[in-house]
Amino acid sequence: MDEIFVAKGDEISPKDYVVAEYYIESNLPLLKAGIEIAKEESIGTWTKVYTLTESAKRLAGKVFKVDEEVRKVWVAFPVELFDIEYGGVSNILSIVAGNLFGLSKLENVRLLDIHIPEKICKKFPGPRFGIENIRKLIGTNREKRPHIGTIIKPKVGLNPDETAKVAYEVAIGGIDFIKDDETLVNQKFCPLEERVSKVMEALDKAREETGRQVLYAVNVSASTPYTLIELVDQALENGANMLMIDAVVTGIPMLQMLAEDPMINVPIHVHRAMHAAFTRNKRHGIRMVVLAKLIRLAGGDQLHVGTAGIGKMEADVRETLDARDALLKDINGIRKTFPVASGGLHPGLIPSLLKVFGVDAVFQFGGGCHGHPDGPRAGALAIRQAIEACMRGISLKEYAETHPELRKALETWSS
Amino acid sequence: MDEIFVAKGDEISPKDYVVAEYYIESNLPLLKAGIEIAKEESIGTWTKVYTLTESAKRLAGKVFKVDEEVRKVWVAFPVELFDIEYGGVSNILSIVAGNLFGLSKLENVRLLDIHIPEKICKKFPGPRFGIENIRKLIGTNREKRPHIGTIIKPKVGLNPDETAKVAYEVAIGGIDFIKDDETLVNQKFCPLEERVSKVMEALDKAREETGRQVLYAVNVSASTPYTLIELVDQALENGANMLMIDAVVTGIPMLQMLAEDPMINVPIHVHRAMHAAFTRNKRHGIRMVVLAKLIRLAGGDQLHVGTAGIGKMEADVRETLDARDALLKDINGIRKTFPVASGGLHPGLIPSLLKVFGVDAVFQFGGGCHGHPDGPRAGALAIRQAIEACMRGISLKEYAETHPELRKALETWSS
Repeated sequence: MDEIFVAKGDEISPKDYVVAEYYIESNLPLLKAGIEIAKEESIGTWTKVYTLTESAKRLAGKVFKVDEEVRKVWVAFPVELFDIEYGGVSNILSIVAGNLFGLSKLENVRLLDIHIPEKICKKFPGPRFGIENIRKLIGTNREKRPHIGTIIKPKVGLNPDETAKVAYEVAIGGIDFIKDDETLVNQKFCPLEERVSKVMEALDKAREETGRQVLYAVNVSASTPYTLIELVDQALENGANMLMIDAVVTGIPMLQMLAEDPMINVPIHVHRAMHAAFTRNKRHGIRMVVLAKLIRLAGGDQLHVGTAGIGKMEADVRETLDARDALLKDINGIRKTFPVASGGLHPGLIPSLLKVFGVDAVFQFGGGCHGHPDGPRAGALAIRQAIEACMRGISLKEYAETHPELRKALETWSS
Repeated sequence: MDEIFVAKGDEISPKDYVVAEYYIESNLPLLKAGIEIAKEESIGTWTKVYTLTESAKRLAGKVFKVDEEVRKVWVAFPVELFDIEYGGVSNILSIVAGNLFGLSKLENVRLLDIHIPEKICKKFPGPRFGIENIRKLIGTNREKRPHIGTIIKPKVGLNPDETAKVAYEVAIGGIDFIKDDETLVNQKFCPLEERVSKVMEALDKAREETGRQVLYAVNVSASTPYTLIELVDQALENGANMLMIDAVVTGIPMLQMLAEDPMINVPIHVHRAMHAAFTRNKRHGIRMVVLAKLIRLAGGDQLHVGTAGIGKMEADVRETLDARDALLKDINGIRKTFPVASGGLHPGLIPSLLKVFGVDAVFQFGGGCHGHPDGPRAGALAIRQAIEACMRGISLKEYAETHPELRKALETWSS
């Protein structure tokens, strides 16, 4: 009865199927291994069942392409198999990225990419702001350049006053966007309400002096949807102009709830702590591009995609760029998500970052801003100067001759 | 300044620290690699920062034990570092299982286990029912035996009437517990409301005939907390006596929301689709035991832990048993979670399952029930008979001589 799990390529219309692309290592022939996935994740079971009906046959997953050379298999899951109305990302993942990872017949299996048809896409909110509207908030919608962000450092340990002081310094220095560290929520040493109130006051003061509005993404990643909403309310009541959620550890449904909430009229920055537990291994798990597509659909306005190997985090250039492309390419009119590069970055890396990412990106600096010998303001200035130099086609070295903050930054961080 | 990230073992009181145990592959000396984790996941950053304060030093993670032979490192994170009130599981994971997986200085890193101190544990609900109260519902609190469950098969494709018919058959046959497949939510071919109403009617009818109440875990894994609550309401209004959530793909916060809801007075069955994307690799990712502890804290009454290599799913006996133990051992008075073994099981495997799991477990059968030559009722009977034989110390072979359903099952599935 395995034939119901196989189809020819031209029988699979991309309008009617979710298509998942897998890399597989198995002692089984590749087609057979693909059938195991198609079966397990649709109607299947491991033994002949007597309850098999016509409708079950219609819902069967179908292997429609196999590439022996690269050990890839393409499986099409009929749209009807999905709970489009209620299931969302959790239902999609339970099918394309569910039990299959544990099947003993497969030694390793990696979900490389997914195609989600319009019928399903249109049930998702997508980003409320997206790149274009965040550019309007920052004022870069005409002269396009990458946005520059910072995480306050040390990651945790500062109190609200200290946090606000650092925020003020980097805002004056020229940063576009500040975010909480992903581990900081509402700890006693830095309560969220007081932190937001003081940081926003500092940013308002900076705006009066510079004319520029800096965004502050407040981390509301919480224990339950109720505590999350409580933190969102506290953040918004105290003037927060951006929210941040750590969508892998909270679950993507929490992000989608925020994106669909008509009372939340600020962009949502998405961190991805824990992703590398399943995205890093090249032979098993899930490729970042899949997570990127789902987080864009669910409404992330900004998403970390890695640094393409530039900085402290592990990354494959191709993996980063594919994730980036998933945020930028046209998908059924859904707004674009700003790709964020973060992790061990400093001003000297900006030319490489620009070459890889182009202008539609956020470059985010932690230690590479606050660790500047003359402090966070000088660090922010140095980053801004490096961006300016690149946008004008001047080498950092040359620009540094007339910009002491950049010069010191280049002296401090050599690679 | 690395010395602030190191401590002696006797300086670490388990009352005041979350302790994480990691396996690490890195070119760095092991202590140094451990410090990278301690730093990244507490106050750290990759370069000297000028904003380092006394309070930050107090919050530093500490490497306090290293075992070169097995490449293990133990890191203690001070309780104060955590947002106990609001952060919950997402905050814990963002620290002990966050960015560290992507650090380029570490080639592979696996979170092997965590210790969570009482101060944090007591903020979690834990299971509302737990093993003892589920036993009361089923009527096995005196004569303890494993519970037996089934997933309706085919996994998806049956309509509500067909589902109810199968449910009735297995209930009459002697199954304790039925669950939806993890990919079935509220699809058009089997709407949740109608499905629950018809299945509960069938189970009520079976109860009138047998005197036994069968539990039915309805899958409410949904796109957002709002759609989830909508499905929960539909399920409960139609008589559901158990709920099911797929806690990895929805996020554990959705489970905790259910467990804390005073209006939900039924046990919660937890599926774990996608877990093997990060639990399976022995060198990288997260061990199942960690997930098991967090899901128990967050309120799962039943949780899949694998089959210890018995059946179709990949598993290491030690991994399964450690996850099982995490559900059963005494943790600050939190109720015990029923471990569930599921995946490719059939009656002939019950003696092995009992030997590995003991009586405090749920054995769950899909094809190994419904694929019985004489249908689902005979399949359920065969499973029940195999349990009876084992509880009386009679071999399956001998018991099969007087129990034709078991005999046919043993003939059908040989290993």
